[in-house]
Order: sequence, then structure tokens, then C-alpha cells
Amino acid sequence: MKVSELGEFGLIDLLSGIVYQAQDKETAAWQELILGMGDDAAAWRGDTSIQLATLDSLVQGVHFTLETTSWEELGWKAMAVNLSDIAAMGGLPCYALVSLSLPGNTEVEDVTALYRGMIKLGQQFEVAIIGGNMSSSPLVSIDIVVLGSTGSEEYILTRSAAKVGEEIAVTGYLGASAAGLEMLTKNLSFTAEAAAGLKKAFLQPYPRIVEGRMLVEHGVRSAIDISDGLLSDLRHICQASKVGARVEINRVPVQPAVKDNFGDRALELALSGGEDYELLFTASSEVIDRVRKAVSCPVTVIGEVTGKAGEITLVDGKGNPVDLPETGWEHFTGK
Amino acid sequence: MKVSELGEFGLIDLLSGIVYQAQDKETAAWQELILGMGDDAAAWRGDTSIQLATLDSLVQGVHFTLETTSWEELGWKAMAVNLSDIAAMGGLPCYALVSLSLPGNTEVEDVTALYRGMIKLGQQFEVAIIGGNMSSSPLVSIDIVVLGSTGSEEYILTRSAAKVGEEIAVTGYLGASAAGLEMLTKNLSFTAEAAAGLKKAFLQPYPRIVEGRMLVEHGVRSAIDISDGLLSDLRHICQASKVGARVEINRVPVQPAVKDNFGDRALELALSGGEDYELLFTASSEVIDRVRKAVSCPVTVIGEVTGKAGEITLVDGKGNPVDLPETGWEHFTGK
Repeated sequence: MKVSELGEFGLIDLLSGIVYQAQDKETAAWQELILGMGDDAAAWRGDTSIQLATLDSLVQGVHFTLETTSWEELGWKAMAVNLSDIAAMGGLPCYALVSLSLPGNTEVEDVTALYRGMIKLGQQFEVAIIGGNMSSSPLVSIDIVVLGSTGSEEYILTRSAAKVGEEIAVTGYLGASAAGLEMLTKNLSFTAEAAAGLKKAFLQPYPRIVEGRMLVEHGVRSAIDISDGLLSDLRHICQASKVGARVEINRVPVQPAVKDNFGDRALELALSGGEDYELLFTASSEVIDRVRKAVSCPVTVIGEVTGKAGEITLVDGKGNPVDLPETGWEHFTGK
Repeated sequence: MKVSELGEFGLIDLLSGIVYQAQDKETAAWQELILGMGDDAAAWRGDTSIQLATLDSLVQGVHFTLETTSWEELGWKAMAVNLSDIAAMGGLPCYALVSLSLPGNTEVEDVTALYRGMIKLGQQFEVAIIGGNMSSSPLVSIDIVVLGSTGSEEYILTRSAAKVGEEIAVTGYLGASAAGLEMLTKNLSFTAEAAAGLKKAFLQPYPRIVEGRMLVEHGVRSAIDISDGLLSDLRHICQASKVGARVEINRVPVQPAVKDNFGDRALELALSGGEDYELLFTASSEVIDRVRKAVSCPVTVIGEVTGKAGEITLVDGKGNPVDLPETGWEHFTGK
């Protein structure tokens, strides 16, 4: 069977199983492990805190093209997608290592711009770049590992802690990143303000580190960052938590410029677009109220966790079911 | 200027400088950092031990071709090159995260074989694979981060601790990996035993974790693993330690099958071939004697550390200088 037939998530499940089976459960490494493959970051018990590690890559022609992305934006985004994984655990990032593959005819100036982008975002969270690797390659790819921590085992956000009856909420607005990509690749023209917002959402997402900390501190235990798309990432939570979800599409916070400029497709972009790097989480309404007061971004309840394991239903304003659109980005199948 | 004109090491120096300059020296991350960019692994103070992290990649067409490497061998080697960086710090590895990029038409079976190779080697050092990333890409590349630790700040091997007057020593034999690559790509034929040894050296290097631990425990403080080639890696030590080196070429432990089959070129392969993943280190002769008794592999003194900063001289059996050959692999320039 080809990888494209099994799909990204099928492959990850298969490999997780192989790794788990082969693992000697008596080793110190395993004994201290809290979360292995299958969450936004790995987590294990350090001496006095919980350690977090995540590794994510951007590949030329798959995640970006240099025709629409500057090198500095690329550096920012490569750092952002990794910091977002730490945010989705409720952690604080600390160190980053960068593996960079690029063709020999790349301009040195472009590589320094790439680093400037990574540094610029990293500095905002006091992240130090402490190592990595450099390799020649016919195409540009950037792998970053970010190491972080969170206070204790209770102060962690996982995909598997959603409980039936909890509300489902999301930070910020959705759809702007996918709309920005579409604007750039199709050369769509909007007002200067809308265009700038959409471009920024796609090229310079801002990881919700501060909000992730607020979530754990106020009692949230289940979260994921929206990288594949709202419905796809909600599916990850449902599968890991063995629950279902009911989403009221009218409540989904579509980013205003998307709503204004993409008509009927705005909702689809918000539900399935991906790369918004907002936090999707579940909690009681009391906890969500506390979170709403603590953070400076919008927090919107979009539905509730149900007992129908693995089943996601979308309903309209009157509670009538609506068809589920394609559920976000998956590598290999490209759906 | 193009990256190929500046070269891999020039680029790393430039980027290290940019990162250093931009770094806020008051942050916790920086305050706890012991070694940033420029050694085999990064090191920082954890709560009760020194933490280590390294990130290395194998790129199709640059580091390997699937015509001469099986997927399982590829997995082993990808893990080995990273474990070797931890060995070169005198550390113990603990966790690994894997970022895998590959085309959608890859066979699932090949990916599971790749993981089997990684797991097989990782298990020998009780390393748990705890996460990573999966991406589609037109070519296969594997990035692995390995996290490890060492007891205290004194129990660490760095490139920058070599001292004038110390002897230069190396574990095991050299040249076999480069000879193995040449054998596979040029279809050379040797005796079955020699062929098997060379192939294994190239495709399944064995990281010197145990020996690295012995080095620190017996008082060695300066080491590097031989990935780029003996002379190239010795140059890294000389530059970082601001010392020179004098190497007696007759003492370089050329692997026997290389000596038997590569004639005049055997020494060149041992000096510049790279990817042997042996440990190159400096210490007093007393310390080296203690190390020799403690480890089960050969330990060979090949020269001494001199005060002529940055200068590496090769001498023959009579002490006469001989010409320096090309000094090993560098990305981008390909020299």
C-alpha cells in the first residue's frame, strides 16, 4: 500500500503502534513519559517540572512557495508553527534547534533574513536558538524543534481530556490564513486593510502562548492548535478523547475580512482552512467564562462535546443538521 | 554572495553570530545555557543534571540514495548520526523525535522498515521515540532530534577544551565508511568479509555512547565525533580550542580492509573520508591510558595538540611534513 492511500493520520497511527509495541516499558525514558506520539508535543517528567518537545517542518512546494513568502516571513512562520504546538500544551517555550536544508545557490542574505524572522518571533517569548544543522538539498526545508515546560502534570493541555457535556470554544477568528493563501496564489484584490490582515494571518501567525498558559491556569485540560483546520483538529480531539462533537456553524467566529470577501465560501474556509493557529479547547461554561475574562482575544463557544464517540455533527441556527464539508488538510492525500 | 561560496561552516559561523548578537542575555534560557550553536550538541543546566539536545538530518540524494541503502538501514543510520552527537558530548541519550518528509507514493512497508531501523538502534541505548512530524515532499528527508543528559557541568566533552601538549587520540578504525560508500557506488568487489565490513561501516555505524561516557569519567574534556572526516573534525576542535595539531600519519588507524583494498588511497580515506562516527579526543597520556583500559575498542594516539592556533600539520614516520589532503566533507561547496 502507498502512503497516499493510508494517509498522514493513518500512517502516524500505524507508526505509533509499532513504536509502542517495541518499547521496553521498564526503561527510565518510558517510565517518565507522560505523552508520546499523537499529541501536539511530547511531555515527560523532568526533575521539578514537566518537559515538552515538539518538532515540525516547512517544506518548499508543500507548505510554502518563495513566490509569495519572503525569507523573513518564512523564518517567522517556521518558528510560529512550533511555538503554537507548545501553546497547545499550555507550556512555555525555552529553546529551539533549527535544521535547515537548502540549495547551494541560495543567497546568504536570504538565509540571514530567515534567521531574523525566527529570532524576531522567538524573542517575544524569550526563546533562545541553541543549535541545529545545515545541509545542502535541492529544495528548502526547515525543521525546528522547540523545547519547553509546564509546571506540573495537572497543568497541561492534551487532546485526550475532553469530557462529554463540556463546551467547545476557540480563541480569535478563523479562516483568515486559508483566505490569505488563496488571495496570494490567485492574486485576488481586496481593500488594503483586508489584504494586509489576510496576508499577515497566513504568513505571520502569532502563537497563542499567553492564552495557552491562561487556559491551563483557569482549569482547561483539553486543547489543540488549529493547524489542519477546525473540523480536522476537532476530530483529533474527539478521537483522542473518545467523544463526539456538535458544532453550531452560525457561532463559528469567521474572520471579518473573510466574511466580507469570500461570500458563501467564508464558512468553509473557517471550518476547514487550517493554519489559523488559534486554540481549540473544551471546558465547562464556568471555566470558559474565567478564561474569557483573563485573555485579551475573543473566546467563542461554538458547540459542545457529546457522547457519540468520533461523530462530529454540524447544525444550523435552528438546530438542523447540515452537511459536513471536507475536513481539512492531510498530507499525502492532500485533502 | 551564494551559500556555496561562503560554505557550510562559514554560514554556521555567520548565523551563530547573528543569533548571539540578537540574544537577550538576561533571559532564563540564556542564563542556563552552557553550549549553544557550534558544538556537537547544545547543553544547558536542568534542575539536577545537564541537558543535551542535537538535531541532524539525512537528505535523499545528498546523504543517501535508496539504490544502495535499504529503508531499515536508513532508519538505523539516521538514528546513529544523532546518537553519535550525544556520544561526542559524553552524554546518555533518552528521547528522540522524528520529522519525516516523503513522497505520497512511498510504500507504507518501507516507512515501517525505516522505523524498525531507528527503533532497533534506539533500543540498544534505551532511547524512546516520543513524537515528531510527518510531511509530504518530493524527496525523502529524515530529521531526528535526540535529547539526553550528563551528570554535571564537569562531565561534558566539548570541542573547545583541547589544551596544548595533550595527545590526540581516536577510537576504533578510520576510512571504512567512505570506502564502503565508494564500494557501493562504484560496484567494487572485495572478499565477502571485507565487503560486509565496509558496507556495515557506511550503512550501520555504531555510535560510541559507551565510550563517550568512559571518556568523561576518566577525565577527557575535549572530543568530537568524526562525521565530516578526521582532519576536518580535528580542525573544528583546533578552531574552537584556539590550538593547533600535529598528526603522525603513520599512526592513523586505517581500517584493515581499507588498507588491504584501497592501496595509496587508504590513508586519504582515513584522513578525509568522514562518517566513521568514531570519537576524536585530546587528553594527557595518563588519561588516555586509563581510557584504553576502560573501553573495549582500540584507542590510538595519532598526534599532539600544539600552540600554533588553527594550524594542522601532518608528518611522516621521520617527522617530516607531508602535504595536507582535502579536508573532508562540507555542504554547499561539496568539498
